[in-house]
Amino acid sequence: MSLVFEHSTLGQRVLFGSGKAASNLAAEVARTGAQRVMVIAAEFEAPIAAAVTRDIEVALNYDDVAPHVPIEKAEKARVAAAEHGIDLLVCIGGGSTTGLAKAVAMTSGLPIVAVPTTYAGSEATNVWGLTEAARKTTGVDDKVLPATVIYDAALTISLPIDLSVASGLNALAHCVDSMWAPRADPINQALAAEGIRALSAGLPTIKDNPDNLAGREQALYGAYLSAVAFASAGSGMHHKICHVLGGAYNLPHAQTHATVLPYVLAFNAPAAPEAAQRIAAAFGSEDSSGGLTLLRQRLDAPTALKNIGFAQENITEAVDLILPYIPESNPRPVDQESLTKLLQAAYSGATPEF
Amino acid sequence: MSLVFEHSTLGQRVLFGSGKAASNLAAEVARTGAQRVMVIAAEFEAPIAAAVTRDIEVALNYDDVAPHVPIEKAEKARVAAAEHGIDLLVCIGGGSTTGLAKAVAMTSGLPIVAVPTTYAGSEATNVWGLTEAARKTTGVDDKVLPATVIYDAALTISLPIDLSVASGLNALAHCVDSMWAPRADPINQALAAEGIRALSAGLPTIKDNPDNLAGREQALYGAYLSAVAFASAGSGMHHKICHVLGGAYNLPHAQTHATVLPYVLAFNAPAAPEAAQRIAAAFGSEDSSGGLTLLRQRLDAPTALKNIGFAQENITEAVDLILPYIPESNPRPVDQESLTKLLQAAYSGATPEF
Repeated sequence: MSLVFEHSTLGQRVLFGSGKAASNLAAEVARTGAQRVMVIAAEFEAPIAAAVTRDIEVALNYDDVAPHVPIEKAEKARVAAAEHGIDLLVCIGGGSTTGLAKAVAMTSGLPIVAVPTTYAGSEATNVWGLTEAARKTTGVDDKVLPATVIYDAALTISLPIDLSVASGLNALAHCVDSMWAPRADPINQALAAEGIRALSAGLPTIKDNPDNLAGREQALYGAYLSAVAFASAGSGMHHKICHVLGGAYNLPHAQTHATVLPYVLAFNAPAAPEAAQRIAAAFGSEDSSGGLTLLRQRLDAPTALKNIGFAQENITEAVDLILPYIPESNPRPVDQESLTKLLQAAYSGATPEF
Repeated sequence: MSLVFEHSTLGQRVLFGSGKAASNLAAEVARTGAQRVMVIAAEFEAPIAAAVTRDIEVALNYDDVAPHVPIEKAEKARVAAAEHGIDLLVCIGGGSTTGLAKAVAMTSGLPIVAVPTTYAGSEATNVWGLTEAARKTTGVDDKVLPATVIYDAALTISLPIDLSVASGLNALAHCVDSMWAPRADPINQALAAEGIRALSAGLPTIKDNPDNLAGREQALYGAYLSAVAFASAGSGMHHKICHVLGGAYNLPHAQTHATVLPYVLAFNAPAAPEAAQRIAAAFGSEDSSGGLTLLRQRLDAPTALKNIGFAQENITEAVDLILPYIPESNPRPVDQESLTKLLQAAYSGATPEF
């Protein structure tokens, strides 16, 4: 089969090391020669931000952060950056905090150094999001890609086990889905496979011993790769299903991903043998679905949509809602019948067999 | 073991497709809005360049290309670019051609679209080289990194089998050596592993059927990844050995790499089990050295330094020359005794056992 692809690699520096966020940030600020740093961190992230910025001079500490980046919060932050003559944005926190920094960078062109404290992954993408009148708009702009990301697993220790595992499985789903997403290519497949390897090594360690830094490091590293692969490959069948289910039936995001993933993998694997082989190898398993099942058992992952708020009578409607969004690139054709069977199995938690 | 690394990903677009160079180039020129394109291609590359540029307007065709980018050739090309009001450099050819485009970009800041016709790999790095008074200087500058690379395996069909295989093994050596080079990290290891996978799939096909595009595609794709991994990870033990041997005893570049690689792999593998496992998996083999041996047999790769111009009496001197260059990061300590044993084995073509 001939190899045809278009791949945009996003240029970015990654500094990775537990307990090193403060020293890496100071080195990075010195390297860029920035003089007027704006530190963005939500109020509840203030203690972490204070520790991470202890070795740099801060021109402005900014904590007016809200989920989904409301446009008026973005405007206010942009004005603050301009008024203070800011020349570097440092964001310390989860996806909302990174999102606000991106909103400022979008209009100002200011560089961002991101210090993530969760597995949100936004720090590794050029995607921005803004909410106006309860409506979320997203877009792609290289100006919002953080120039440097500083990862420090010690900053993630306070993430609860359950949330860590659920977010980690969400990241894993991004990796798996990247194998057949619309812009899938061998480069993002290789990075996604590395992400699967790291997440499947790290998550069980977090489950058993949440204070173990090695497990947190692998999960954080894997979450980074999942964001890189996802940003490059786009949304595949799995994410389209979860997006619709989450939006239409208000299901919990990470649990929905964790529940649906084995069904999409079992459905697509026979039609995508090379992708399935990459996934299996990344799990260190003979078989892709077998590897995922073992990991899910180890993590006590949720197994049925019926247990997380989805009602059986919604299956027919859900199928109609989802079908138009299934990417044409999906390796196996999806129709009403096969999608109904898939959702029925995911609803009841039956062994995925297609 | 704790995960600590610093990784700079170089931002670059890659357009990959056999027979698509001309249409991809036209699309890329249109996308960038360039009006004054300078096409750099050596005289012998003129027919390929003419075919690839058939759909774009060319302001200047430039063919004064020489190996290792002599400084006076660079100056002349820079003047030509300025005189013609050039706003985009397109280089079509091997390493020397890409090198000249980089020399122009270095002082002018002009963007480059590179269309490689060999496995040189320069198109994927931010490394430049210039030769002045027979002395080569190299350096790193993001300005010389081509913004876009257009790969078209059909342009490599005229590369002779022997040269394809030798260059391919050289690229493979870059991948293997990236596993333990000074700036090795899991990201460039993952990309290097993908490069090994692609090269070990593609090279035997080229050997058996040099006109088969699928084999050429895999090799070209693998060579690209080897350059990315090498640029990121730096030179490891293998490259230091080959660099000294090549320089001091005038051995042929690619053959030296092909001959020395199994000895360095066998030497380092026991001290770098994770790297060895990645290499083995990429070969689709149980064992890293076993996988490499099978591939080398399949390709009739050179097996002994004595057959490519190296004399036994030089081993002692070579060891003294090489030792200071072995990176401190090498997973297994190297001393006079172990290096002598390694070179002795590589000299005679003995089975690597350390």
